[in-house]
Amino acid sequence: MSTYLPPTRNHSPYLPFGDQRGAPFYGKDILSVKQFSKSDLDYIFGVAHEMSEMVSRVGTFDLLKGKILANLFYEPSTRTSSSFTSAMERLGGSVIPINEVRYSSVSKGESLADTVRTLECYADVIVLRHPEVGASAQAARYARKPIINAGDGVGEHPTQALLDLFTIVEELNQVDGLTVTLLGDLKYGRTVHSLARLLSLYNVRINYISPDILRMPAEIVAELDEKGIPQAAYNTLDEVLPETDVLYVTRVQKERFEDLNEYEQVRGAYVISAETLLAARERMIVMHPLPRVGEISMDVDEDPRAAYFRQMEYGLYVRMALLAMVLGKA
Amino acid sequence: MSTYLPPTRNHSPYLPFGDQRGAPFYGKDILSVKQFSKSDLDYIFGVAHEMSEMVSRVGTFDLLKGKILANLFYEPSTRTSSSFTSAMERLGGSVIPINEVRYSSVSKGESLADTVRTLECYADVIVLRHPEVGASAQAARYARKPIINAGDGVGEHPTQALLDLFTIVEELNQVDGLTVTLLGDLKYGRTVHSLARLLSLYNVRINYISPDILRMPAEIVAELDEKGIPQAAYNTLDEVLPETDVLYVTRVQKERFEDLNEYEQVRGAYVISAETLLAARERMIVMHPLPRVGEISMDVDEDPRAAYFRQMEYGLYVRMALLAMVLGKA
Amino acid sequence: MSTYLPPTRNHSPYLPFGDQRGAPFYGKDILSVKQFSKSDLDYIFGVAHEMSEMVSRVGTFDLLKGKILANLFYEPSTRTSSSFTSAMERLGGSVIPINEVRYSSVSKGESLADTVRTLECYADVIVLRHPEVGASAQAARYARKPIINAGDGVGEHPTQALLDLFTIVEELNQVDGLTVTLLGDLKYGRTVHSLARLLSLYNVRINYISPDILRMPAEIVAELDEKGIPQAAYNTLDEVLPETDVLYVTRVQKERFEDLNEYEQVRGAYVISAETLLAARERMIVMHPLPRVGEISMDVDEDPRAAYFRQMEYGLYVRMALLAMVLGKA
Repeated sequence: MSTYLPPTRNHSPYLPFGDQRGAPFYGKDILSVKQFSKSDLDYIFGVAHEMSEMVSRVGTFDLLKGKILANLFYEPSTRTSSSFTSAMERLGGSVIPINEVRYSSVSKGESLADTVRTLECYADVIVLRHPEVGASAQAARYARKPIINAGDGVGEHPTQALLDLFTIVEELNQVDGLTVTLLGDLKYGRTVHSLARLLSLYNVRINYISPDILRMPAEIVAELDEKGIPQAAYNTLDEVLPETDVLYVTRVQKERFEDLNEYEQVRGAYVISAETLLAARERMIVMHPLPRVGEISMDVDEDPRAAYFRQMEYGLYVRMALLAMVLGKA
Repeated sequence: MSTYLPPTRNHSPYLPFGDQRGAPFYGKDILSVKQFSKSDLDYIFGVAHEMSEMVSRVGTFDLLKGKILANLFYEPSTRTSSSFTSAMERLGGSVIPINEVRYSSVSKGESLADTVRTLECYADVIVLRHPEVGASAQAARYARKPIINAGDGVGEHPTQALLDLFTIVEELNQVDGLTVTLLGDLKYGRTVHSLARLLSLYNVRINYISPDILRMPAEIVAELDEKGIPQAAYNTLDEVLPETDVLYVTRVQKERFEDLNEYEQVRGAYVISAETLLAARERMIVMHPLPRVGEISMDVDEDPRAAYFRQMEYGLYVRMALLAMVLGKA
Repeated sequence: MSTYLPPTRNHSPYLPFGDQRGAPFYGKDILSVKQFSKSDLDYIFGVAHEMSEMVSRVGTFDLLKGKILANLFYEPSTRTSSSFTSAMERLGGSVIPINEVRYSSVSKGESLADTVRTLECYADVIVLRHPEVGASAQAARYARKPIINAGDGVGEHPTQALLDLFTIVEELNQVDGLTVTLLGDLKYGRTVHSLARLLSLYNVRINYISPDILRMPAEIVAELDEKGIPQAAYNTLDEVLPETDVLYVTRVQKERFEDLNEYEQVRGAYVISAETLLAARERMIVMHPLPRVGEISMDVDEDPRAAYFRQMEYGLYVRMALLAMVLGKA
């Protein structure tokens, strides 16, 4: 949200009773995990937890009644789009779904800035998914209303990282002291990059398990080193699984390998099955950003430690919290 | 809806005053016409009739306020999708529209089971349209929330069959004793198959009018024979029209014919015009599942016996009834 | 809306307290700017102004709670579609979004008439965007519910023209006595045609600035002549900018020119920059229907005279007014 204000009109809305305009994040954009301090996270997760309790008690409530979300998706993402839609609807608000941007004025050449400045005439908050890195920050420079980044290319996807961390908090009641093992494609996955950055605010130990060609980027390892986070890289899970509290699985995509023989050699090491979990603690969780395509077998689904579907639900509460917060109602 | 329950969380929702959890169909899936007894149909149509009265009195009411429907369409169907959307909105509920599944995580290879288990984190009920036979049953095996089948390939489309029968009930105040004539493509049309099955619960006479190559499948004829339903097949409508109470028209598609001469010879016999209806009873109805492409001429539209647009409206009431029922509010 | 009424059912809705069925436009279609008198415009703009005040005070209100809009777009238009969606939601109503008509029953060959007669079973008002001239009028002939034309090919786009005029009224507090300069492609732009027609109800002076091959059609010039509107055509803006109160910019598309040299010669004369505006009055406005693709440089955006983003917002209020009016609630 830029400081630009319209020259001739007053857009400041009516403040209903109970409104908390002094609250953190009111009117703010959610663009990057880098913007959050540890106390910000405490606050967000506190609100998200309240949201989960309200949903389990009453399903839906009218905290954002009369507010409108423009759900602007330049590339499709059923999961993220549905999650934000549900979050807004469970808070009593409305949604303008915009899923076909490729055919619309954008394809006639309109700039992202103009699109955002148009949509903010109709909506109170804009959720933006865009294929280009930095798109959300660019949108926020021009927008008067809050922008929530729902993924910009290989850049950031901060609400995913927040829901990942919230899942850990809710499932294990702590973050400090945990051993988190990130497994799979650690090079290209923006999910594990953002999660690692958030985890670095806590007192954790992080293991990286990946094929050599898909290792966690040196830049991120250096960032965490500076913060004193113990990190170690491995090629297989065996050594670290018994001491792992959180196993975060991502997909190893065939397309990443130039040499398919190499892919065939490593793929088995990155599939989690019920048998794999025999060596794991009784109190630990398996996470995955979904969609999965074979990297966790279905025989794991009934295991209480399989947290990946509950993770989707925690995402709902985190997004409810963020929407309420940026609209000054949390 | 499977009996699978999440291992660590209690998803049982808050029960507001007036909730009727003991009611039939609460928490149930709607997958096939085969699941309904005659008393089930009485119950559904009773609720649907009440819905029609409420809509004509107040337009919309808040029976499902706070409930969310995920409208999951793997293939487009404006009519069915709009009908469910309207049904949910007229009951005060919200909708997550998911129309572009071909571009989303499903096209990345995610299984239907995972998609459904994700969406049920965001919604209270899932309406599913899918091109593959059995998709709804498969989804229901994994889902904790109710699944309503909105058409799975050449398989079932139970809400269409229910609205067809409800149309007959509302328009003619009875089903027992009626003569129902099914006309057109009786071989490939899932609509007429499902309707015939539902009708076999009543004391009716059924006529089949079709080209030889598009006859009602022997399997269904046998099924109805077993129940003692009088059935007869004809090539033209003339003989049976005067005694017909319900004329159900479906489209004869050119593509079904290998020999186009054959198509040209028969096509005229399956087009209903104002002139055709001169030989029909004064109290009878003409139905069609729509869309029509010429098989009923527009000069029939103003005839009071033309029930096909009213049929769409009855569909709204049936879907309102089903949504309310599976959510425990009917 | 035709006078056709369903033969056997009573569709007249319940009239809640405060309903103003005698009000102008209740149950009417909005098809063309030609249907409006000057006093109609006064009425519409009065309601639209009230809408703007309500939105700035309370954001959203429940005037159309329980009403459903079918937003039927046969071609994509993010801007117009989002604007109507927001208008309905800010009035507490619901929306059935139908954006993929090309894949649906329409592509199976269903007529527009049947589509509209189906949708009106589910909705209370239909907004229609269609690529063919006259589509809205055709839809209205068959519909029992009000149709609002949201653009039919090169034909009409009446709500755009209304919002353009409302922008002038709100920004400059008058229409009579103004000098309005229309610039760019005046031949193919339905926007400037409709606006010129509406302006001809007032006491204004109109300038046309365009390349020779893109001049305002003689038919429209003749129409305005008959009403005594002073009109003059120019090739460049310089002569008339100092006396212009409203500068309405449209895009000059490269594709319109057979001889690209000709395009290169003229293009610069039709781009508005901060420098251009040095010669303009202090109290004047620059308008554009958007999207823009370079015809107004971004250095104009911060100028208080740049009204094109506010114009989008005025569009919201005009559409809220029209929806409320045709539904008998204004």
